Amino acid sequence: MTEIEELGRRARVAAADLRSAAPERRADALNRMAGKLAECREEVLKANAADMAAAAGLSTSFQKRLCVDDKVFEYMTRRLQEAAALPDTVGRILEERTMPSGLQVKRVSVPIGVIAMIYEARPNVTTDAAAVALKSGNAVILKGGAESLRTNLVLARAMREAVREAGLPEDAVQLIPTADRSAVTELLKQDRYIDLVIPRGGKSLIRAIAEGTRIPVLKHYDGICHQYVAGDADPEMAVKLIVNSKCQNVAVCNALETLLLDAELPDSALQKIADALRENGIEIRACEGFRARVPGCLPASEEDWDTEYLDKILSIRLVHGMEEAIHHIAEHGSGHTDGIITQSEELAAGFVARVDSASVLVNASTRLSGGGDYGMGAVVGISTDRLHARGPVGPAELCTYKWVAVGNGQLRK
Amino acid sequence: MTEIEELGRRARVAAADLRSAAPERRADALNRMAGKLAECREEVLKANAADMAAAAGLSTSFQKRLCVDDKVFEYMTRRLQEAAALPDTVGRILEERTMPSGLQVKRVSVPIGVIAMIYEARPNVTTDAAAVALKSGNAVILKGGAESLRTNLVLARAMREAVREAGLPEDAVQLIPTADRSAVTELLKQDRYIDLVIPRGGKSLIRAIAEGTRIPVLKHYDGICHQYVAGDADPEMAVKLIVNSKCQNVAVCNALETLLLDAELPDSALQKIADALRENGIEIRACEGFRARVPGCLPASEEDWDTEYLDKILSIRLVHGMEEAIHHIAEHGSGHTDGIITQSEELAAGFVARVDSASVLVNASTRLSGGGDYGMGAVVGISTDRLHARGPVGPAELCTYKWVAVGNGQLRK
Repeated sequence: MTEIEELGRRARVAAADLRSAAPERRADALNRMAGKLAECREEVLKANAADMAAAAGLSTSFQKRLCVDDKVFEYMTRRLQEAAALPDTVGRILEERTMPSGLQVKRVSVPIGVIAMIYEARPNVTTDAAAVALKSGNAVILKGGAESLRTNLVLARAMREAVREAGLPEDAVQLIPTADRSAVTELLKQDRYIDLVIPRGGKSLIRAIAEGTRIPVLKHYDGICHQYVAGDADPEMAVKLIVNSKCQNVAVCNALETLLLDAELPDSALQKIADALRENGIEIRACEGFRARVPGCLPASEEDWDTEYLDKILSIRLVHGMEEAIHHIAEHGSGHTDGIITQSEELAAGFVARVDSASVLVNASTRLSGGGDYGMGAVVGISTDRLHARGPVGPAELCTYKWVAVGNGQLRK
Repeated sequence: MTEIEELGRRARVAAADLRSAAPERRADALNRMAGKLAECREEVLKANAADMAAAAGLSTSFQKRLCVDDKVFEYMTRRLQEAAALPDTVGRILEERTMPSGLQVKRVSVPIGVIAMIYEARPNVTTDAAAVALKSGNAVILKGGAESLRTNLVLARAMREAVREAGLPEDAVQLIPTADRSAVTELLKQDRYIDLVIPRGGKSLIRAIAEGTRIPVLKHYDGICHQYVAGDADPEMAVKLIVNSKCQNVAVCNALETLLLDAELPDSALQKIADALRENGIEIRACEGFRARVPGCLPASEEDWDTEYLDKILSIRLVHGMEEAIHHIAEHGSGHTDGIITQSEELAAGFVARVDSASVLVNASTRLSGGGDYGMGAVVGISTDRLHARGPVGPAELCTYKWVAVGNGQLRK
């Protein structure tokens, strides 16, 4: 038995215990995790400083994700406490009926079992993933980016101690203690022990993982997010929503990438939108129609409509009515998050019914598509899969269900 | 574009229309399908007679599944009508809240999109699958066993006509019009158009399909179903439940395969159980402990505990307490359906909490684990997967959801 196989086996044993552990005990473990983390604060910061020193040659954005400063540390412990306080998602009765035969049938939420998280060098994902997994009664195997290994080792040790002190199996939280990438290959072979893999990172990485394993994979692909601004939209609200959707954080999956503006909008509105974007340092790549009405924009190529920039670039297209907007989104969108800005409830309802995305928004920033702003608390990511979990993945999405049927001797006729 | 690719493309177009079709229209289509089928009755029976004649050399059980007699025909049309009458599963609000920001957040059930069903030569699956798919607003591509092609062609033509007459796209229901197996290989490549594949048949076929495609596969593996009879069980009820679980239909996935009897049960109870099984023509393969107390049984090998007989054979093991029963099920079960027979609510609750199967039953026949007896109406099968759908797969399980968030200018802070 390899080291990784043994790790899988231990996770499976822990999952069996977790399945029937009381909600209070899991909540207690989460609070203890926050407490233990606070105790280890200096150690965490020291380990992270070593990780940061080793990553000195890497990009600023990489280092930003890797860094655990006071703010990030506070965020990590707070998320553990928030998870503890959330309503429990295990054991909920999702459906219940008594059949004419007298058979009482219930559909009850239960943990999935063992979940493997494979993610970038972002230490806060280590604690977030452990929080969401434990909240939903799952054992978790964590594999963070190699560059964060020192930090993660301290975090995992602290969390495991807390779990044990709460009277739960410490193997509920395990970290793959190596930077060796072959560990991932080995991990993906453990279909006997692992029920679900959640990879986070680039599209090609996720695709490679999904195609290299028999274990179900919950995929977090890109967000080519759109806002369609209808002809009747209030220009002021539109400007605010567009700027927030695009600029609040350009590097995330729910940032705006393509703006669809109805050709009926007055020139003044188009100009205001372009000005506001430029003031925020956004490069505009636009279709001919938009460029004819607002001078000074770069031309968009066909490729632009299919690009997730994650950068200070926005593509803009003029469309003639909602129908054209919906077709553009169907053809070029990634089914992540798409919105409409309009004063018409009827238009909004049509858009919501026909746009087939994980999140469809009306008069709201695309940046609100996510766990916190939907009231879900801690999440491990935003799924672009259609099955099982779509959109934000929190504790409820890391549960499955079973059917429980209680009778007094009922037979099949 | 190959013929199969074109079929996928047409299904995708139909799915986009179905997504926003009114529930009444889909129900109307289902009722019309039943009516159209009745009109084509003679033609269906004639085509099936030709299929049956060509299958004359095949096994009795194969022919039994292929045959459409009056009873099967009546069943097929009734299931379409029943599906029409079921509550609609599309557009249900699964969750709803207003955030402090004023953002109204809803999780709404929506169709998955395009579903491909690959199944044996069982014409009733053709109509059942179309019924469940259309009920849930999905377009379906049907690929039944080659031996049923003549029957299926008539059924599909009738159903497509009905769908068209109801004002919906006839491509909501498509049949692969060939017996050529390479069509399946081609079908499994259409990940651009197909959202979910549901294969039914042998374990090796399902595994081959799951490993040969990028499309998510909902798996229906075997049912190694158990009943654990606790020491306090009422022997009379136990005998009835065991006989029904095992004998009502031995060839199905929710038939009993292994009986776990508590060693505390009196000899008289063990003897009664063995006698009743033998009277029903069941061969018993038992552990040493059971054979020492009830003479005349064949010995069970280690392999027996892992075997889905689908035949008039039952393995029996004496266990010392519920703990041992739960461990046996965890080691040898397939997570399909497992039951306990007991008079103790406490024991039952412990068993339900700790046995990790799609269906866990208390004092009920394993044969009740399924759509109809759970009040779900038409189902396309019983999933042994843990994710998305577990247990019976009906219209609700062929839906996914999307998040809809309605605001009035909310921004991310």
